[in-house]
Amino acid sequence: MSDTNQVPVTVLGLGMMGAALASAFVKNGNRTTVWNRSTEKADALVQQGAVLAPDVKDAIAASPVVVACVSTYDVLTELLSGAEDELRGKVVVNLTSGTPDEARSFAARAEEIGVRYLDGAVMAVPQLIGLEHALVFYAGSRELFAEHEELLKLLAGNSVHLGTDAGVAMIYDLGLLSLLWSTLAGYTHAVALVQAAGASAEAFTPFASTWLEHVISPALPQSAKEIDAGDFATEVASLDTNKAAIAHLVATNRQLGVENDFTAAIQALIERRVGQGFGAHSIASLVEAFKKS
Amino acid sequence: MSDTNQVPVTVLGLGMMGAALASAFVKNGNRTTVWNRSTEKADALVQQGAVLAPDVKDAIAASPVVVACVSTYDVLTELLSGAEDELRGKVVVNLTSGTPDEARSFAARAEEIGVRYLDGAVMAVPQLIGLEHALVFYAGSRELFAEHEELLKLLAGNSVHLGTDAGVAMIYDLGLLSLLWSTLAGYTHAVALVQAAGASAEAFTPFASTWLEHVISPALPQSAKEIDAGDFATEVASLDTNKAAIAHLVATNRQLGVENDFTAAIQALIERRVGQGFGAHSIASLVEAFKKS
Repeated sequence: MSDTNQVPVTVLGLGMMGAALASAFVKNGNRTTVWNRSTEKADALVQQGAVLAPDVKDAIAASPVVVACVSTYDVLTELLSGAEDELRGKVVVNLTSGTPDEARSFAARAEEIGVRYLDGAVMAVPQLIGLEHALVFYAGSRELFAEHEELLKLLAGNSVHLGTDAGVAMIYDLGLLSLLWSTLAGYTHAVALVQAAGASAEAFTPFASTWLEHVISPALPQSAKEIDAGDFATEVASLDTNKAAIAHLVATNRQLGVENDFTAAIQALIERRVGQGFGAHSIASLVEAFKKS
Repeated sequence: MSDTNQVPVTVLGLGMMGAALASAFVKNGNRTTVWNRSTEKADALVQQGAVLAPDVKDAIAASPVVVACVSTYDVLTELLSGAEDELRGKVVVNLTSGTPDEARSFAARAEEIGVRYLDGAVMAVPQLIGLEHALVFYAGSRELFAEHEELLKLLAGNSVHLGTDAGVAMIYDLGLLSLLWSTLAGYTHAVALVQAAGASAEAFTPFASTWLEHVISPALPQSAKEIDAGDFATEVASLDTNKAAIAHLVATNRQLGVENDFTAAIQALIERRVGQGFGAHSIASLVEAFKKS
């Protein structure tokens, strides 16, 4: 088949994300075979034109490319055990969430049984699947990715191959999740403060958005340069300055009865570096506080 | 003087920020009197046309509007003690950083001695002072702000009066700083992860920027709505889902030797709410985890 775009595909796992992935293939006209432990999740897809396989082995045998999106790597390992014959020679694209080590172990096992393997991380909600700006990270063979890039772009226009280390997609995934959780924890903390002062989340939030988009995000490339160069000299906002300012936040948390543990964790990072003699460094140098010895 | 824009102004404190504020007035042609404990910091401003006052009392007496930007509220209180006669009837705009309670105490004292007082928080680096999109928050009398809004916009085009509670500018200030520190801690943590996997900060950072600008920031208005309504029902990303996912991050921190305390502080917030029976709520409900009983 010369048009990789039209290759038959199997999707294992029809949770919200798996169903969205399968639906994108069906809409493009690919012969799409689906499997899920509870078969009723396939009903809507079958109505759209997907084929429900009776078991995992049949599902795998039906297509040269198998996309997996289940709850954990352990669940997937268990699902596939015993299907080694069907898997041999197939392309497996695994979009299950996990840790870098799980991805690497899985990739090693895939190689043992003769599977051509790509690990991936979906950085989008199911509603965005199939759209131009949806982002999916991939890790593994560069050639395999190039061979199927067109097919994978049916799922997400922004499909990015990060490297051959099978763990790197999970690493970037966890990095962006860390940024998401940190930012939302900071945002909800800020809202708790303004609420304690009688203001609403709605009144404060436009300033938070402006701050994220026009102050914080534009400063990141400079931080990245400092980090990669290991040169944290600054004339603007040293850790010493930030240490003094975050003490105001701690005092205010206490005065307003706002939980301080999260702020204290950030304060500890700043104070660790200041205590090590790096008070004149920029705030980007906090990256060093995350490295153990 | 009908053109409030041209009112004579005194600036107390010529650190990097104070000097930038004074310079904006000088450039506009306002008669600008400056004072600083170490007088050499006034040299460049005097060359531009500012007048150096020999002491604080003379500095205050020279202008109807006094802008203060020193290191702490305590320092300012000490500076002004004994100058009550000169201060009576003046407008004092205090852009010193501190806590909401410090701002409120200062405002109360100002009222006692007959000063018309605005508290403010500069949300910009000195290089941005005088520009259209520089942001300064103000708190205090609405009439006083309206009367001097034109003058204050010489310092920052985006000069915003938040309310009559003298502490509210400091609250918003600390809220945005909390968001800044949280986001940068999350970013530097993410970079420590990708570095441990052999990738560079530069390779990862464009994804972090896109994530902040196009995924996280656009989600905040919905979070604000949920928070103000106290309704955290969600079909997308429940705390239960986030609890499972952050466990992957904790495991990965440990595998890669990346400091886990900061992640653990966020995990504790999520797990506190899940433990209280709110696992089905959206992540915006973390605001409740910050409220002590």
